[in-house]
Amino acid sequence: MAKNKVRIIPLGGLGEIGRNMMAVEYGDEIVVIDAGVLFPEENMPGIDFVIPDISYLKKNKKKVKAVLITHGHEDHTGALPYVLPELDAPLYASRLTHGLITVKLRERGVLKDSRLNVIEPYQPFKIGAFRVEFFRVCHSIPDAMGIALTTPVGTIIHTGDFKIDHTPTDGKPTDFVQLARIASEGVLLLCADSTYAEVEGYTPSEQVVGETLDQVIREAEGRVIVATFASLIARMQHVLDAAVRYDRKVTVAGRSMSENLKMAMSMGYLSAPSDILISLSEARKLPLNKVIVLATGSQGEPTSVLVRMAKGEYKDLEVQRGDLVVISASPIPGNETVVAKTIDNLFRQGAHVLHSRTAMVHVHGHAAREELKMMLNLIRPKFFVPVHGEYRHLIAHAELAVSLGVDEDNAFVLEDGDVLELSEDRGRIVDSVPADYVFVDGQRIWKGGRKLLDERARLSRDGVVAISITLDRETGEPVGEPKLDSFGFTSNAESEELFKKVLEKVYSLLDRHAGHNVDLSKVKADVTSAVSDILYKESRQRPSVLTLIDRL
Amino acid sequence: MAKNKVRIIPLGGLGEIGRNMMAVEYGDEIVVIDAGVLFPEENMPGIDFVIPDISYLKKNKKKVKAVLITHGHEDHTGALPYVLPELDAPLYASRLTHGLITVKLRERGVLKDSRLNVIEPYQPFKIGAFRVEFFRVCHSIPDAMGIALTTPVGTIIHTGDFKIDHTPTDGKPTDFVQLARIASEGVLLLCADSTYAEVEGYTPSEQVVGETLDQVIREAEGRVIVATFASLIARMQHVLDAAVRYDRKVTVAGRSMSENLKMAMSMGYLSAPSDILISLSEARKLPLNKVIVLATGSQGEPTSVLVRMAKGEYKDLEVQRGDLVVISASPIPGNETVVAKTIDNLFRQGAHVLHSRTAMVHVHGHAAREELKMMLNLIRPKFFVPVHGEYRHLIAHAELAVSLGVDEDNAFVLEDGDVLELSEDRGRIVDSVPADYVFVDGQRIWKGGRKLLDERARLSRDGVVAISITLDRETGEPVGEPKLDSFGFTSNAESEELFKKVLEKVYSLLDRHAGHNVDLSKVKADVTSAVSDILYKESRQRPSVLTLIDRL
Repeated sequence: MAKNKVRIIPLGGLGEIGRNMMAVEYGDEIVVIDAGVLFPEENMPGIDFVIPDISYLKKNKKKVKAVLITHGHEDHTGALPYVLPELDAPLYASRLTHGLITVKLRERGVLKDSRLNVIEPYQPFKIGAFRVEFFRVCHSIPDAMGIALTTPVGTIIHTGDFKIDHTPTDGKPTDFVQLARIASEGVLLLCADSTYAEVEGYTPSEQVVGETLDQVIREAEGRVIVATFASLIARMQHVLDAAVRYDRKVTVAGRSMSENLKMAMSMGYLSAPSDILISLSEARKLPLNKVIVLATGSQGEPTSVLVRMAKGEYKDLEVQRGDLVVISASPIPGNETVVAKTIDNLFRQGAHVLHSRTAMVHVHGHAAREELKMMLNLIRPKFFVPVHGEYRHLIAHAELAVSLGVDEDNAFVLEDGDVLELSEDRGRIVDSVPADYVFVDGQRIWKGGRKLLDERARLSRDGVVAISITLDRETGEPVGEPKLDSFGFTSNAESEELFKKVLEKVYSLLDRHAGHNVDLSKVKADVTSAVSDILYKESRQRPSVLTLIDRL
Repeated sequence: MAKNKVRIIPLGGLGEIGRNMMAVEYGDEIVVIDAGVLFPEENMPGIDFVIPDISYLKKNKKKVKAVLITHGHEDHTGALPYVLPELDAPLYASRLTHGLITVKLRERGVLKDSRLNVIEPYQPFKIGAFRVEFFRVCHSIPDAMGIALTTPVGTIIHTGDFKIDHTPTDGKPTDFVQLARIASEGVLLLCADSTYAEVEGYTPSEQVVGETLDQVIREAEGRVIVATFASLIARMQHVLDAAVRYDRKVTVAGRSMSENLKMAMSMGYLSAPSDILISLSEARKLPLNKVIVLATGSQGEPTSVLVRMAKGEYKDLEVQRGDLVVISASPIPGNETVVAKTIDNLFRQGAHVLHSRTAMVHVHGHAAREELKMMLNLIRPKFFVPVHGEYRHLIAHAELAVSLGVDEDNAFVLEDGDVLELSEDRGRIVDSVPADYVFVDGQRIWKGGRKLLDERARLSRDGVVAISITLDRETGEPVGEPKLDSFGFTSNAESEELFKKVLEKVYSLLDRHAGHNVDLSKVKADVTSAVSDILYKESRQRPSVLTLIDRL
């Protein structure tokens, strides 16, 4: 690659929410930003999560000089246990992000071979030809950073996930003076968070939620149960503050919430009197109006505390009439239905429930259009690449950038895998590298591709019928009776009659095939299609048919 | 049942959106209101839709005197082809509703045995001891009605789905004078639509959408494609009006849309010059800025026109750069993800897309809190039962009713199947009748219950492995080699090695069982569990295992 060019290669996170990863390549050096997971969509049954395809990075392993992480959310860090061992490059992250990554890598047994470094914002360092400077942004987790990456071609600014919050809970707003300084020498490219690029106005400050929670807890007459994201440390701080103010104790239910709270406490990201936290069993001994429960399950996760409470299946804590449940989160796209059902079930158990549609109990962590304009106007980049968000968000963000003065030819809506090559005055897509979904199922990388997912989808619609046939090696006639069974297809009472008809058809088909030179694979194909047809004719359903056939 | 009592039995539509059905019983007479379907939820793979359980009505078939239908939407009429033949009672509905039901029953071959009657609003008629009066409400389909059902115990008012629109497209607002007259003699019970009982304020008038569509079409420089619900006649009227105004022709893509438009035209529910509608092939010959396409697919339905266009798979109409697509609908809960993907794909095809999150291109058809208050204050019922909506909506609506003066003991949040018995001054739940989901799959009533759905869900997560074993009748030893195959489980390359391990395990297990008194069902159970275990051990997945076993 020519010395006056730099390449931007998104490997995930464009046109989707999650799986964020981008490579920046200059000369013989590559720097990677983020390595996240995508949570599986409806049409990915059985898949645990999706990670980026890093075959391009593996092929160029020697070039990869560093992995930089913007913040500690799963959609930016979740692929690290799979990616880091393959790349063998040092990782740089802020203090809390570093802490969260350490826990994750240790759990997966890959910590000791990893080289992790803690960075401080506004303290530039060199990685080969790159000058790297992290800058502070606000997001729904503390210690979130954007990254300024200066190359000989120019400076690239990547915002990470961000919003502009002038009154964040941790007292660390985006530092515009620093950003202006970084931008003052001219910015080649801005890559900015697009998740809320369709939403007009400003995203409210976390402070607004603090005020609501304060009021809700002050006025509550019984127990208060607050469910939120396990990583939303600011939300925990509000709850702890209100507990102190209104003389309640806080108990934490849910492993991830409990671990994150402990870590945030010990690292100084949360502050509260030491006696404010009590165990669940201690909480049970207190009057209800002296207790706040912090719980997981705000996304309706089937095994979470809140969902089990809602179903009356969480023995350590039963919902009681008079309980107030605050769901301090909004459903991530795809989770709307399960969250709604959880709310319904909590009401059925006798609780009153406040949620994001009925009260100001949640704000999200992404910039709306006015904030995006502010960022664009502050940075004034020559080139613009919207990142993080579904395709329509990227389009909306690119249009916004153009309306604010970015040249139309310089705003690129990329797809994952596109290789954007930038010189000082020109950008074009010069290549494409593999960037398809890589599935992780049962903790293993999935080699089956989408075909298996299609098979699963089909199984889930109409179930499966298996038929086993043994043919006589000499005569080609069936030995014994074919065996039939089904799963997920139809009830036993109905299938008995149906299977009789199937057997009749199979016998007549085998009769026609009989002879000593039977072509097994042809018989198999014919049986499968004949069985499918008769099942469809009789039931209007198309179960998958598995035909097991051999000769004896 | 005592003469001074009336019973209200919701058979569907409480705690869920859809499957609306209610029985009102007085003495030896039952009147049924609505018979709708529920569209399947995520955890109902392969199910086409869900209908109410009418076993109580079938058991009391002689008592059922009439089926009254509030309006023509599927969630209020879709179960009629299954319900009407079983009940053999006359049906009463407004003119358009009657037309839509006629089409539906004819398609299913049950029209000629049905007794359908057209009613006019404000023209009371008798059904046994009931006096029935339909009254006009506004909703997202013309000719929507509420029902006043006067019994010797008192008057029951059922709103059906409604909103209060002072400027509806068809010029027929809710008639408050008539409603006041009906309510003036005192109302025993109000059953009112709760779908938007959590939403503050007023639902905007359909007129607002008309204004947006007018502006959008006026300013569009290329082709305009409007996708909406096939039953949203008012939305079609706006499009036709704008077409006339801005000199465009309208072409309709999608069977249901096309049929509904034709019917609405012929019945006088739509008015437009006869030459405004053209065929798709005629439309292709016109300049792009002379064409509006009305299309189905606003809910992201996989086989709909819009979704196929978005994927570039609809040959009759390809999206072109410069096309403006207006999705004049909002996603029904559960459809959010597929609608979002459709929008993304349309952008990818080069269209610009306006949708309910970015423009005022849709209003829904349900009353928000201020309208619900208006209805409550107009009717001033003694008893209140919130209907239509998920559980939290019913709760919110009941609380609203109490805040407006309904006695707390007289507001009942029922579950489907509850039997609420009302006298003039007291109500209580006295019984419960079957009201569980009845599944329709492949057009057949599904007798398998939820067990089969669980099996399908399991299949979809990890696929299936089938193993076939034949044992010697004398020795109990395997005859030939066990046969193995899988579907939706793992890729072939991986399974070969895996299956070798499975066979080893199976052989050693069969060895232990060998003998001439082999208990086949025990061997089957042991093989199934051994195969499950080894597959889990090797793959961390739990495919369903189908073991086919016999003796030769």
